[in-house]
This record gives sequence, structure tokens and C-alpha cells, in this order.
Amino acid sequence: MIYTLDLIGVFVFAISGTLSAADKKLDLFGATFAAFITALGGGTLRDVVLGSTPVIWVTDMNYLIVIVLAVILTFIFKEYIMTLKKTLFLFDTIGIGVFTIIGMEKSILLGFNPVIGVLMGVASAVMGGVLRDTFVNDIPLIFRKEVYATACIIGGVAYLLLGYISHFTELNLLLTILLIIAIRLIAVRYKLRLPVIV
Amino acid sequence: MIYTLDLIGVFVFAISGTLSAADKKLDLFGATFAAFITALGGGTLRDVVLGSTPVIWVTDMNYLIVIVLAVILTFIFKEYIMTLKKTLFLFDTIGIGVFTIIGMEKSILLGFNPVIGVLMGVASAVMGGVLRDTFVNDIPLIFRKEVYATACIIGGVAYLLLGYISHFTELNLLLTILLIIAIRLIAVRYKLRLPVIV
Amino acid sequence: MIYTLDLIGVFVFAISGTLSAADKKLDLFGATFAAFITALGGGTLRDVVLGSTPVIWVTDMNYLIVIVLAVILTFIFKEYIMTLKKTLFLFDTIGIGVFTIIGMEKSILLGFNPVIGVLMGVASAVMGGVLRDTFVNDIPLIFRKEVYATACIIGGVAYLLLGYISHFTELNLLLTILLIIAIRLIAVRYKLRLPVIV
Repeated sequence: MIYTLDLIGVFVFAISGTLSAADKKLDLFGATFAAFITALGGGTLRDVVLGSTPVIWVTDMNYLIVIVLAVILTFIFKEYIMTLKKTLFLFDTIGIGVFTIIGMEKSILLGFNPVIGVLMGVASAVMGGVLRDTFVNDIPLIFRKEVYATACIIGGVAYLLLGYISHFTELNLLLTILLIIAIRLIAVRYKLRLPVIV
Repeated sequence: MIYTLDLIGVFVFAISGTLSAADKKLDLFGATFAAFITALGGGTLRDVVLGSTPVIWVTDMNYLIVIVLAVILTFIFKEYIMTLKKTLFLFDTIGIGVFTIIGMEKSILLGFNPVIGVLMGVASAVMGGVLRDTFVNDIPLIFRKEVYATACIIGGVAYLLLGYISHFTELNLLLTILLIIAIRLIAVRYKLRLPVIV
Repeated sequence: MIYTLDLIGVFVFAISGTLSAADKKLDLFGATFAAFITALGGGTLRDVVLGSTPVIWVTDMNYLIVIVLAVILTFIFKEYIMTLKKTLFLFDTIGIGVFTIIGMEKSILLGFNPVIGVLMGVASAVMGGVLRDTFVNDIPLIFRKEVYATACIIGGVAYLLLGYISHFTELNLLLTILLIIAIRLIAVRYKLRLPVIV
């Protein structure tokens, strides 16, 4: 189930990467690169830092296949996809939740402590977007406006705490993703933002 | 022969990195950094992702020597080098071809499949320039205009197919490089570009 | 002693990262990221390239604790810290010196030659700032104006040479840091800069 969700996360992040490439008038190669870095940049960075190489997508081809599929579909159905903003936001948030938890579980499985687990979970979820923004020459939005990362941190901690209470991993996963979605929705609706240093 | 071509590729990429630093008014340190990242950034990224570290240039000093040489020569003979645009374009394309094939062979030798081989070959050839553009705060040209990466992909696939037909590696290498040069020349002459998502 | 100095270096670099985030109107997450990448980016890059992973800060929590502390203190006492420019410059230069030498010693201990040692020392000291500037969408200052890297290179070479003469590591460290401070002060006072390619 987590593997399927991971691929769905990769798929959605790849679509979001391709759409951001459209804003920047990138060509097919640029768009594919943006899709790739958005979907796999965070996890790759995590694995490199933890010394867990080769990274997964050089041995499991499904990741690349899913990304190529996402790029092609976005090129063909761009008009239609743009009308799905709410669905995309939902899938994107599911993606964040899944990436956070997979990153966290992987780190803890490798023997690192829970703090590093949460940190690596958040990095898995947000660094792909940060790298994409950097490559297309934007200041990452997440540094200024979004509570994206905060939602991941709270979600990550919640998932850890839930693990102490119950061992129904899938239920915990579902609850955590619902929590992250709730935090993002509330933050967007009430325009909640982190303090800026002044 | 491949080792020599590799060093030539590093030399030419280092010159191109130094020249791009001149456009940005970087100082000697900035220029050396730009030369270094252009020449070795792609291969370094490939080796890190594949878990093949330490990277080659920390154990074989020739790579750094060639880069320092390229920077010094470019600082001294900049006027003259600028008149060699066509020669540089030729060498640059040879560099791309060599980097693609070395990256590919190295990946396949490490046991990865041919698709990853081509992908890593292309990454070796193009990511140095992408990283350089990102560090000097440009949107990488390759994301918008060039068929650079496409030429690498076609070249990489051609080299793989040639390998099934004949085992004269050096002849295959030569044919592949000629193919990549032809694709780039045709693309530049006829202003061929990849589609942009709209 | 070196471990303590390392943590002081991380602390000062984290403050400088947080302050640069303030210039860019980043929020608390962006500021923490900037602090983190400034303080640990250089050493992380070094360890990844040398294949010495997992990196230190995923196993020794003190590094992250020091960074979080630096961010919080900078958010609270920003006004006051801004009045300490001279003290910060001094600590920053101490940080550079320490990072250069730690990076160098670590590389040589891993069996790499002294040239790579100096290169990795300089990378440890300067790449954190370069990465931070790149993420917040600036051309790294160090590429255009500062003699920062030059001071590190001279300091690194001096430390190596001192090692041949005497084995009082701590005295050598102190002398090297004084040398780096002197070079930076002289460079700032007399507006010394590296040549720009024209």
C-alpha cells in the first residue's frame, strides 16, 4: 500500500513539476527535468546524506516510468488538468504526507533516531520543490509563504506518537495524512503564516 | 583513448565554464569554480547518485590539473579563444559525446540497466552546465532552447545499439560522436527545438 | 578543542544564515533552512563527495541543536546582534579558519592527498554560503568580491606547512586562524580583490 501511495506521490509531484515548467516556458526536456527533480529530488537528497546509495530510482524503473507518463499526460491534457486545481491540491497533500512518512520510516529503519527521522521525512517531502524552484531561478515559495513544511513536521511527529499508541500502520498513515490535509486547508483558508524575521 | 578524450572533454568544458564566468564578471575564484562545476559537476552527481564514491577527481589529480590549466589559459588568451567559436563548438560537442558514453559505460559496468545507463550518460554530459547556470543565477539555457540533451539521448541509444552489432568500441565511439555533432549542427542550422508546453 | 571550535563555527554560520534570510523576508522555516545550509552545507558536500556518509549531523545531534539555538536567538535578539558586526566578522573568520582546517584534516585522515585536503577544507568553509546564496536566488558574493576563499587557501597551505615544522596542532591552528583573520582584514581595508577576467 505504501509503495502504491509512493508512486502516486511521485506521479502527482511530477505533474506539479511539469506545470511549473509551463509557467517558465521550458521545453520538453526542461519540463521532464522539472518533473523529475520535483518528484525524486527530496528522496534522492535524503538517501545521499544518509549514505543509502544507489538511490531507489536507479534500480526500480517504475519511478521513471511514472514520471515520463505524468509529463506526457500533462503535455496532452494541460487544459483539463488546470481545471482540476482542487483535486491536484488534494493529491499533492497526500503526496506530501506519504513522502514525509516514507522518508521517516526509511531513516528510522536505517537506525537513525526519530528527530532525524522527522527531519528526513520533511526533507523528502519539500526538497524536491525547493530544488525545482532553485533550478528555474525562483526563490522557493516554501521559504516565504507556505506552511507546507510545518504541516509535514507536525504530521511526522503525530505519526511517531501514534506509533506508540497503536500498531495499525495503515490507520496511522491515514490519520496522519488527514491531519496534514487539515493543517494545510486551515492555513490556506485563514492565511496562517510563519513569523518573518524583521 | 577514452581517458584522453575524457580529459579533453574536461578541458573544453572548463574553458566554456571560464568564459561564462567572464560574462558574469566573476573573479578568478568564481571563474575557477564555474570551470570546475561545468567540467566535473555532471560526473560527480552521477557517481554520488550511483553510490560510486569517492568521486574520481579526488583520487586522480589529472582532472584538477587540466581544469586549472584551462582557467589560466582562458584568462591569458581570452581574446584569441573568442575567435575560435567554431572550434570550441566542435570540441564542446566532442566533450558531450565522450561524457555521455563514459557516463553510460561506467553505469552499465556498475551493473545498472541500459536505460539508467543512457540517463546517467546524459546527466554526465549536461548537469555540469545546468549546475553552473544555476550557481550564476541563470535559468539553464538547456531547459529552454538547446537540443543538447536530445542529441545526447539519441547518441547514447545509438551507441548501445551499435554495441550489439559490432564490438569495435573505438569505432562505435567515433560514429556516435559524429552522430551527436550532426544532430547539433542540423538543430542549430534549422533552428530545431523541442516543443514547449502551452 | 577542535570539536568545540567546530560547534562555535556552526553557531556563527547559522546566525549569519539567519540574518541573510531576514534580508530576503524569509519566514521561520526559510530562515532555519538558510541557517542550516550555511552552517552544514559545505561539510555535507565534502563528505558526500569523499564517500564519507552518513554525514556527521545525522548521528551527532549537537549540530542541529546549535543551529536551532542560533535561529531562535537571532529571531529574538536581531536588533542587538546587528550592532555586533565587528564581533560577528571576527567569529565568522574564526569559523572559516576552523572549517578549513577540520575539512582538511578529515580528508587527509581519510587517506586523500594534501591538495585534495586543502580543496576540501576550502569547500567546507565556503560552499555553505554559496549554496545559501544560490537557494535564495543571489549570485554568490564570493564569486565576485570577497577574498574569503583565497584566505582559506593560503590558510590551508600554511597549516600544512606548519605541520611539517611543529606538531603542536593547537598552536598551528591558532596561528593559521590568525593568518586568515589578518588576510581578510587587510583585504577588506585595502579593498584587495582577485582579478576579473575581461
